[in-house]
Amino acid sequence: MNWFGLARELTVAAESKIILLVIDGLGDLPHYGRTPLETAQKPHLDQLALQSACGLTDPIYPGITPGSGPAHLALFGYDPLQYRLGRGILEALGSDVSVGKRDLVARGNFATLKDNLVVDRRAGRISTEETARLCLKLNNSLRGMAGARFELTPGKEHRFVFKVEADGLTDLLGDADPQKNHLPPVGVVPLAASEVTQKTADLVNAYIKSANDILKDEPAANTILLRGFARFPDIPPLGEIYKLRAAAVAAYPMYRGLAKLVGMNVLSVGPETENLIETLERHYKEYDFFYVHYKKADAAGEDGAFEAKVRAIEEIDRCLPRIAGLRPDVLAVTSDHSTPCSLKGHSWHPNPFLLSSRTALSDRVTVFTERECSLGILGRFPALEVMPLLLAHAGRLKKFGA
Amino acid sequence: MNWFGLARELTVAAESKIILLVIDGLGDLPHYGRTPLETAQKPHLDQLALQSACGLTDPIYPGITPGSGPAHLALFGYDPLQYRLGRGILEALGSDVSVGKRDLVARGNFATLKDNLVVDRRAGRISTEETARLCLKLNNSLRGMAGARFELTPGKEHRFVFKVEADGLTDLLGDADPQKNHLPPVGVVPLAASEVTQKTADLVNAYIKSANDILKDEPAANTILLRGFARFPDIPPLGEIYKLRAAAVAAYPMYRGLAKLVGMNVLSVGPETENLIETLERHYKEYDFFYVHYKKADAAGEDGAFEAKVRAIEEIDRCLPRIAGLRPDVLAVTSDHSTPCSLKGHSWHPNPFLLSSRTALSDRVTVFTERECSLGILGRFPALEVMPLLLAHAGRLKKFGA
Repeated sequence: MNWFGLARELTVAAESKIILLVIDGLGDLPHYGRTPLETAQKPHLDQLALQSACGLTDPIYPGITPGSGPAHLALFGYDPLQYRLGRGILEALGSDVSVGKRDLVARGNFATLKDNLVVDRRAGRISTEETARLCLKLNNSLRGMAGARFELTPGKEHRFVFKVEADGLTDLLGDADPQKNHLPPVGVVPLAASEVTQKTADLVNAYIKSANDILKDEPAANTILLRGFARFPDIPPLGEIYKLRAAAVAAYPMYRGLAKLVGMNVLSVGPETENLIETLERHYKEYDFFYVHYKKADAAGEDGAFEAKVRAIEEIDRCLPRIAGLRPDVLAVTSDHSTPCSLKGHSWHPNPFLLSSRTALSDRVTVFTERECSLGILGRFPALEVMPLLLAHAGRLKKFGA
Repeated sequence: MNWFGLARELTVAAESKIILLVIDGLGDLPHYGRTPLETAQKPHLDQLALQSACGLTDPIYPGITPGSGPAHLALFGYDPLQYRLGRGILEALGSDVSVGKRDLVARGNFATLKDNLVVDRRAGRISTEETARLCLKLNNSLRGMAGARFELTPGKEHRFVFKVEADGLTDLLGDADPQKNHLPPVGVVPLAASEVTQKTADLVNAYIKSANDILKDEPAANTILLRGFARFPDIPPLGEIYKLRAAAVAAYPMYRGLAKLVGMNVLSVGPETENLIETLERHYKEYDFFYVHYKKADAAGEDGAFEAKVRAIEEIDRCLPRIAGLRPDVLAVTSDHSTPCSLKGHSWHPNPFLLSSRTALSDRVTVFTERECSLGILGRFPALEVMPLLLAHAGRLKKFGA
């Protein structure tokens, strides 16, 4: 199914408003018989479910556990198996590094080199503060080189994000990382025989060489390793495909970055849950489509904190009347992926989904939970089909054929 | 969706165990209001359903009635529309003819030739014993010829399986069968212009000519017809794709052969239902994945024997505690296809499916039947998605993207 082809053919501009509320990591497994969704007091979500068409979505494919990147791409209608995001891009987005069209990014480690062997790929896990100091040192000395602009952004412990901006860069590069300790360092190798890849590889290798000179007297972190080279992906903008003005209301860097990747306008938002709603209300008149991202349920799931997840669900439930109070033509609530507390990580389990709209046929679902949504009128369906449903209920898809 | 590409990328080796119990031909239609599954006393299957995630699977595509070959391929994660098995291969497997990489096989008939016309393509449906005698006669005279090794294996009535083993054979051959009575015999014609196909066609035609000489004084069966030429299909081995050690516990030749085709280790097993369980128990430590095949439900369906089908279901139900007692990480029970008694043959109706695992979200299904499974949390889904689910619940699929 070429959904984008169909979308370009059939979407029409309209006055209608769509709000897609993504409660990150919402789905879960039972603890003493009940999931967090089955435990939480969430009268507003349940009331909304009562009036909605419900179902369960598979983020990528049954059984496949998605990262946040592909899970969100699917929700926005981008086939995540076609639009693969390089690891470097996601790392950059998660570190709040802005990535532009001329940029090449990679994940970086400080490492220890001895007798021309990489003896510790993590430089003894130096502290986050130490990494910040070293990044600053390199940025101060090596910002501009051979017409390119370099910047390291420190991450946790020995990690950083590498970024270089120049004309004509490619990401067809092998890792400058031997992958194991006690092997000689490896330079960046072009993965395709072309002048452009060779030029990019030479540029990055020159940077590594200069960095080694500057770091040579450091006790542990005397070299850098770079891997997962990636450029801003070639993704058609959501607003153009669907003929709408799209805005993201998200506080965390990763999700703000993902929204930027698909061409949404990323709104400024404060760190509290309340701030999400304020931002949504403040900009409601300016856009047609709002992606609202709520992180706390996922964070609790990752920590295995069942009670915290219940409270996170109850907190967003209390915000729901203000969201629904905007009276969007379509209000959908779902998740990008499940994050069961017992697994302390993402999982493949389908996501509860509800869609409220004047044209939605409500079903027997009266409680918004994983198990009740499985009885919803939408059944179990790929997350890739969410966007077509949102657009249809918003009156933004014209008839196919006559 | 390129599932094998994804599987090769995402599957990881693990310690976990998976048992897939296939109750052949399980699904059915009601007789006085109830299907065999709705009639049978099967407390263990129902108890398992209570703790499981349930659903209904479509073997190939809605409305499509599958043969045993494609239905099993789908369950093992091989797209049956992509991996087509030649009829000759399935006939050979069903007749317990072992097929190797150098072999070419075909379905054979003894037939009657008169005045250079095939006047009876079934040689008057000669007896099974007569066919056995004729196959022996040909095998004794024509086993070796032109560097190739020939072997006929008698089947029912006038039917046999033809096999030739040599280097460089192809199955791009037309049938040596006029398809209708009262037409002249036709030789094997190469379906591609190449030296290899011509050589293979010449070899088979030489065999037919020699067989005609040996059979010339037989009253009815004085020639042979060959059709459905096939070689061992080019199928990637299951164990390699999914990174697991796979074993088949199946008594019938067709299913043992199918398991061999996908690279499973086929275990020795006695003819009784009890023997399936003993074999499973005996080899439980040696493998990660067990395909257990139970035939009696299908056999009863083919006979239109409703009561026998009920008893077959009750018999496998009594074995369930011993299977579940092995405490596999994932236990799934389903079927390859439905075989309704009223149709006395395979049908397109979806198969009841249950999956029991620590990470399975149990649903409202408390009785393992066609109709109850339609209310399961997994909904209705393609059988091709069974394997991803089994692997996910066994902790054998890592995250897709970041």
